[in-house]
Amino acid sequence: MYDLIVKDALIVTCNEEHTIIKNAVMAIREGIIEVLSPAESNIAKTLKAKKTISAENRMVLPGLINMHCHAGDSLFRGLVENLPLEAWLNRVWIAEKAILKPHTTYLGSVLGFAENLLSGVTSVMDMFWYPHEAVRAAQMLGMRVSTGGIFFDFPGIGERNHDRYIEEAREFSHRYTGTQDVFPVVMPHGTYTVCPEHLKEAKTIADAENALFCTHAAETKAEQADIQNRYGNTVIRHMDKHDLLGERTVLAHCVHVDEGEIDLITQSETTVVHNPMSNLKLASGIAPTIQMQKAGVRLTLGTDGAISGNDLDMWLAMRLASSLAKGVAMEPAALPAKDVLHMATLNGAQALGQEKTLGSLEVGKQADFIFVDVNTAHSVPLFDPITHCVFGAGRSDVSDVFVAGAQVVKDHTLTRHDLSETLSEVKSLMPFIKNSLSDA
Amino acid sequence: MYDLIVKDALIVTCNEEHTIIKNAVMAIREGIIEVLSPAESNIAKTLKAKKTISAENRMVLPGLINMHCHAGDSLFRGLVENLPLEAWLNRVWIAEKAILKPHTTYLGSVLGFAENLLSGVTSVMDMFWYPHEAVRAAQMLGMRVSTGGIFFDFPGIGERNHDRYIEEAREFSHRYTGTQDVFPVVMPHGTYTVCPEHLKEAKTIADAENALFCTHAAETKAEQADIQNRYGNTVIRHMDKHDLLGERTVLAHCVHVDEGEIDLITQSETTVVHNPMSNLKLASGIAPTIQMQKAGVRLTLGTDGAISGNDLDMWLAMRLASSLAKGVAMEPAALPAKDVLHMATLNGAQALGQEKTLGSLEVGKQADFIFVDVNTAHSVPLFDPITHCVFGAGRSDVSDVFVAGAQVVKDHTLTRHDLSETLSEVKSLMPFIKNSLSDA
Repeated sequence: MYDLIVKDALIVTCNEEHTIIKNAVMAIREGIIEVLSPAESNIAKTLKAKKTISAENRMVLPGLINMHCHAGDSLFRGLVENLPLEAWLNRVWIAEKAILKPHTTYLGSVLGFAENLLSGVTSVMDMFWYPHEAVRAAQMLGMRVSTGGIFFDFPGIGERNHDRYIEEAREFSHRYTGTQDVFPVVMPHGTYTVCPEHLKEAKTIADAENALFCTHAAETKAEQADIQNRYGNTVIRHMDKHDLLGERTVLAHCVHVDEGEIDLITQSETTVVHNPMSNLKLASGIAPTIQMQKAGVRLTLGTDGAISGNDLDMWLAMRLASSLAKGVAMEPAALPAKDVLHMATLNGAQALGQEKTLGSLEVGKQADFIFVDVNTAHSVPLFDPITHCVFGAGRSDVSDVFVAGAQVVKDHTLTRHDLSETLSEVKSLMPFIKNSLSDA
Repeated sequence: MYDLIVKDALIVTCNEEHTIIKNAVMAIREGIIEVLSPAESNIAKTLKAKKTISAENRMVLPGLINMHCHAGDSLFRGLVENLPLEAWLNRVWIAEKAILKPHTTYLGSVLGFAENLLSGVTSVMDMFWYPHEAVRAAQMLGMRVSTGGIFFDFPGIGERNHDRYIEEAREFSHRYTGTQDVFPVVMPHGTYTVCPEHLKEAKTIADAENALFCTHAAETKAEQADIQNRYGNTVIRHMDKHDLLGERTVLAHCVHVDEGEIDLITQSETTVVHNPMSNLKLASGIAPTIQMQKAGVRLTLGTDGAISGNDLDMWLAMRLASSLAKGVAMEPAALPAKDVLHMATLNGAQALGQEKTLGSLEVGKQADFIFVDVNTAHSVPLFDPITHCVFGAGRSDVSDVFVAGAQVVKDHTLTRHDLSETLSEVKSLMPFIKNSLSDA
């Protein structure tokens, strides 16, 4: 007896072979996919479960993996506009400093994670202050999170010195290593805000605790110039010199990287997170995804925070990734839909070290899956599901979301939390958020 | 006694001054906005109407104007992928030739227009075969259309010779000139598919019948090379030489135009339609919108057809227009949200010659307006409505649509047509559409 059977499913597995299974049956027990088979197969005909649901008129995909987010920054959505990254950051930090306490960080994390989850994202790598609040928010909603707290050389929001941040990162990593819903990651902000000694210390801790290591890298031209000026090296070479690259390292952005830097990323098996919406809107530029793909870089996708984006839409990220690659290079076959869909699913799981449990719908993996409505004016006709995932489907087509077999979104509504409470609370905070910049 | 009052409205007027009216009341009689005023005003307090509706938790905007679409091509959505425009067109034409009859064109038009209307587009410039079918579809759904039939030098889908196409264009224009729901336009396909003599004839008819004149122009590098090779001139200079530019001329694309061509467009007061999604996906390139804007070109927005795009999403077009301009030029203040919102509203109305009746919410104008849900996880907090329109809102946030005061979409559902019938009929046509390319 299975816990759950999904029938009438058009399954986009996102496995290595990009397999599509029409009219499939998926059976789940204790959060694991145990059967995945066409309805006419012998095994499918005999299945019994406590609950059976139909996915008629829907595609079924693995939950998306958003590899770069600052969920709590959703509190500041649309507050600072039309500035380049550096000037923008200076204003963002003033607002963050004034507003972010543990309870407001929790509020912002719920808001940002809810947006992710409602759009079909079941795992998020989140870089923010007070990582225990992010964990609390994600666990409350029923999704997976990879986090561990951001830090700079200066005290920052948490008002701790470096040693304290490092110790907290170690404790956090130690506590969550080996769990299935929190993947610890040590997260210094970037090479221009954290000195090489502190970066190395962070990487050492990450390695010792079997955590990931993530930082912003090569996001803007100004950052490259700054690092060149300070250390006589480009950002990725600077990181390589200090042994910060590797298969457990995740670099957000990599907009401005040269051929040699791409080689360093490839050889070290470092993960790159492409954040096309944020890079465009902050005028950082357009990452060389085609060159990175050709070199063999593990490319993943992220939304960045809503304060830059201005939302957390992985469907938009997918569409932008493919269409920007084609449009900028004027190569219509560049970065095709199937590769971009992997960036948002299987590649993310690999980057998290969870490729045996997440990132595709396959027997033995966690039952993290979503229903995508395909009976809409913008979905019919549907000749190729993978093309539709990248170039037609959108966040609002996600009707239902399951994590480890448990339904966390039902008919576009969170099952474990009343979102209207969060929205009301954020609205009541708006005057304070706005005032935080009044003297700035 | 008014016909309809909308209260509790956060109105984004899209007028010249970008006025926002909080807690506004809008009163409508015989399809015209007669009152638009803050709720606390004296006039607002005394209004009475047959029907009053609340727009609480919603923004109210004018209906969007999609200035370049091939609605009937929605039948072929996702059929031809990963090809450059010229190779792609050759396959598209084979499928069109096999499938398009008047009744299938009507079916495709209903599908494409329904997608537009459900996303808040109330006026569409549509370039396609059998324009009377497009009119029938638009009128059935309750929206406005600017059309008039496409033609080439070769017989095309309608299998008519040039004289017959020209005569039909004249008849069509003559029939609809001066109406409020059909704005006639003479639509030769492009300078590389229609000879200068036929283009001039088309422009003469358009002028004589007070119709608009629209064609594809400077979409790809290959097109520019072709025209240069054949006529010794770039596309826009070629058009200027043959007196095809002017304030009633609408050029779709203009991706590859030089400074001198931009000057010709500006001086002639010709309209340009920017189609960023289609231009990216077909790898045509990225139009120089910043340069065109600085020169004073009237810029409008379009989706192009779903066979290139792969959907008809004006919200995506807005977001791409602003973010591409910023990202490509690395200028964070380039093409800001307020200008892009005008591209999708007031500028479109000006291009149609309807700036006195459409394109903004103002007293005396037609009551074409939409409700946009702003009580969602991706909309809160909302500090600036205009920024949110371009960088946060999406098609699925449009809950209700009114044209001339009549409700044509209610709670995300068409009021005058059962969309499921159209979707079923398109699905039953899919095997034939797919087969149309089996020998190609």
